[in-house]
Amino acid sequence: MRTILIIGAGRSASSLIQYLLEKSEVENLHLIIADLSLSLAQKKTNNHPNATPIALDIFDENQRKSAVQKATIVISMLPAHLHIEVARDCILYHKHLVTASYVSDAMQELDAQAKASNLIFMNEIGLDPGIDHMSAMKVIDEITEKGGKMLLFESFCGGLVAPESDTNLWNYKFTWAPRNVVLAGQGGAAKFIQEGAYKYIPYGSLFRRTEFLEVEGFGKFEAYSNRDSLKYRSVYGLDNVLTLYRGTIRRLGFSKAWNMFVQLGMTDDSYVMEDSENMSYRQFVNSFLPYHPTDSVEIKMRLILKIDQDDTMWDKLLELDLFNNDKKVGLKNATPAQILEKILTDSWTLQADDKDMIVMYHKFGYENNGKKEQIDSKMVCIGNDQTYTAMAKTVGLPVAMATLLILNGKITTPGVQLPIRKEVYLPILKELEDYGVVFKEQAMPYLGYNPDKVFS
Amino acid sequence: MRTILIIGAGRSASSLIQYLLEKSEVENLHLIIADLSLSLAQKKTNNHPNATPIALDIFDENQRKSAVQKATIVISMLPAHLHIEVARDCILYHKHLVTASYVSDAMQELDAQAKASNLIFMNEIGLDPGIDHMSAMKVIDEITEKGGKMLLFESFCGGLVAPESDTNLWNYKFTWAPRNVVLAGQGGAAKFIQEGAYKYIPYGSLFRRTEFLEVEGFGKFEAYSNRDSLKYRSVYGLDNVLTLYRGTIRRLGFSKAWNMFVQLGMTDDSYVMEDSENMSYRQFVNSFLPYHPTDSVEIKMRLILKIDQDDTMWDKLLELDLFNNDKKVGLKNATPAQILEKILTDSWTLQADDKDMIVMYHKFGYENNGKKEQIDSKMVCIGNDQTYTAMAKTVGLPVAMATLLILNGKITTPGVQLPIRKEVYLPILKELEDYGVVFKEQAMPYLGYNPDKVFS
Repeated sequence: MRTILIIGAGRSASSLIQYLLEKSEVENLHLIIADLSLSLAQKKTNNHPNATPIALDIFDENQRKSAVQKATIVISMLPAHLHIEVARDCILYHKHLVTASYVSDAMQELDAQAKASNLIFMNEIGLDPGIDHMSAMKVIDEITEKGGKMLLFESFCGGLVAPESDTNLWNYKFTWAPRNVVLAGQGGAAKFIQEGAYKYIPYGSLFRRTEFLEVEGFGKFEAYSNRDSLKYRSVYGLDNVLTLYRGTIRRLGFSKAWNMFVQLGMTDDSYVMEDSENMSYRQFVNSFLPYHPTDSVEIKMRLILKIDQDDTMWDKLLELDLFNNDKKVGLKNATPAQILEKILTDSWTLQADDKDMIVMYHKFGYENNGKKEQIDSKMVCIGNDQTYTAMAKTVGLPVAMATLLILNGKITTPGVQLPIRKEVYLPILKELEDYGVVFKEQAMPYLGYNPDKVFS
Repeated sequence: MRTILIIGAGRSASSLIQYLLEKSEVENLHLIIADLSLSLAQKKTNNHPNATPIALDIFDENQRKSAVQKATIVISMLPAHLHIEVARDCILYHKHLVTASYVSDAMQELDAQAKASNLIFMNEIGLDPGIDHMSAMKVIDEITEKGGKMLLFESFCGGLVAPESDTNLWNYKFTWAPRNVVLAGQGGAAKFIQEGAYKYIPYGSLFRRTEFLEVEGFGKFEAYSNRDSLKYRSVYGLDNVLTLYRGTIRRLGFSKAWNMFVQLGMTDDSYVMEDSENMSYRQFVNSFLPYHPTDSVEIKMRLILKIDQDDTMWDKLLELDLFNNDKKVGLKNATPAQILEKILTDSWTLQADDKDMIVMYHKFGYENNGKKEQIDSKMVCIGNDQTYTAMAKTVGLPVAMATLLILNGKITTPGVQLPIRKEVYLPILKELEDYGVVFKEQAMPYLGYNPDKVFS
């Protein structure tokens, strides 16, 4: 019997736990499902004979160490900044560790110790980061092994609402932490490379510099630039690539409409608004508009945002009930971003029958035998329901599969790592296809970074 | 013989030293002019018999304490964050202190000790802060002493180039720290009150939400909002005022043109650009524009900023030589803001014969005996030359005058303070008129905050 300690039984653990419980008989697994909330752990365990729910406060050192000590391997689904104490315990008691989070500096510092004890600390093995690394490295490795030289890599990912549940003018609902959506793109200029030239986009222009994408059967999408496009340049072996760009996918028109909030200052999280609790939605809007003795909030908004009478941007604002003077914010000492999140949550919360959707899109440009070629790789995953969402599947299944591969000795390279090696991505990408996570790769004419498809 | 220690002999100390030297015979003064650079101190002393230049490193505690100990009163013209050690020495050796800087928290903490020793620590007695406090408090006190109730206070100030030296399309040259001009408005939303409603402007809109002002004989100006409009609400006794707004004055059209840099991200000081040293001005511009295989930097710039063929905004960009591919930035590891400062300095540096200009404009709205009234107060000061600039006069003369008033027992209230008391502002405002700093007050029809002059 192998014991898997899963710390954190929240939304993203559903598919992960389901997968491991389904394998538990054949694979001889026992799951300890630990959460601060015992009832949440019990709910996820669902009385399965091969699972034990426990209450665990990870700030209680004895409790945490005791749980880690009893496990064969540990999965941490905690918020990213809370992994490190668990990781140190894993070093202490010689346990492998799997997380879906970015490798922090503190985590990276454990690399030598992990290697010395032959431990695998697999991180960034969820969706993004995770499936993006694996699906990209598979194609990059294939290209370079055939003697190709990488010229261009663009990678896009987005968590959206499924077409059958896409019922509002924004073509968007919150399928993940709303706060992260409101704050997206803040904290510094986006930086990337196009045809060898470094490019920078400030926050104020980020949502107007989108690129368009099309996925057969799902129509058109757009993407705005991530801040960290160059982060994996060396990790992916792309130091000499001419174009490197990472973006976040939305439905067409979302970003231009979102930019209205950015321009008004409604996404600002750096200061608290006066008397936010008793402010109406209309007053909130008016706070960002010039005073006028007679003009309405509506006409001032149209003027400052230059919204013509026949512009559907206006209907997007009306749909959010932004001009309602009876609806109160009801949040004490709230920032503009917190208030906007509240207003959007009224309209963008998934309903009981709604399903979510994950879209991922990579472009690989390369040169082989003097010929320039391109491969586009696309994946769309639709959620089953509100528990086994596309997000829960794409984040949780790779974590679960990696855990089993480590237990079964199929992943053997020790140390703090990302899933960029064949021993990791080949079996996981293959198995993910059985769960509806399928990448369709197709050869394309190579144009370089050239969205308008023009030549001199 | 009274000894005045002046620490810091930079640009803003010129008029201050000149004033005190002129008074030195009659007032029995000896000036110790201390600077890290002995030659700078010597230059400002100009062999005057009543002045001694000394080299002073304020980080050398013994040197600093010894200089303070020998003085009757101390003037610190150091950068704002360096006053505090001097202030602590003044407490130790029982010396009065005068600075033109904002009261820091550390300075405020010395209030009780200063009062206990009957010491006057006069701060914010330059131009802005300084003359703004004094000229505002004079009118506010007059209004409230006649039984008026303040309704509105708007206050604007700007350092500009004098009309006779105004030779570029931006109607602007650097007359003070260029870095502060490039970074102006960053670090948080501007906040103010208009007719009882709190208003917030994000940085991205700051330079498009300007107000217009007119000064007889000098034409039209515009002003963008300061971040800190509410800072002196209580200090000025304006807690119940309906409109409170502070702004920075520029010539018409400057802000709209400056906003081009803001929108492109060129004022960002938060990250270093790749290979900034070898970048040409043209490459710098292109970094903020989308890649295109054939389109010129110029056409991409026009498109992204929506500059029509007949728009003079374009000529403002050309005047700065922004598209030159031969001029190199030449700064290692530079931020966009540092590079922009370099480019602007090429064009906006004062020439040998150029003069600067200070403009200040206050609006006071109030109600008296059921009648609403308004007073506008305006001041324009032109520099004599590049040493006795309008900035040096307006910053330095109030400091010098306050110092003499303290020495002569005319200012008597002890403690850490701003110049908001009659014993300070009445004699100084009166004497400033002899030096060309004259406020013209005029009664206006009251419209409240209502720039379009419309009524319902």
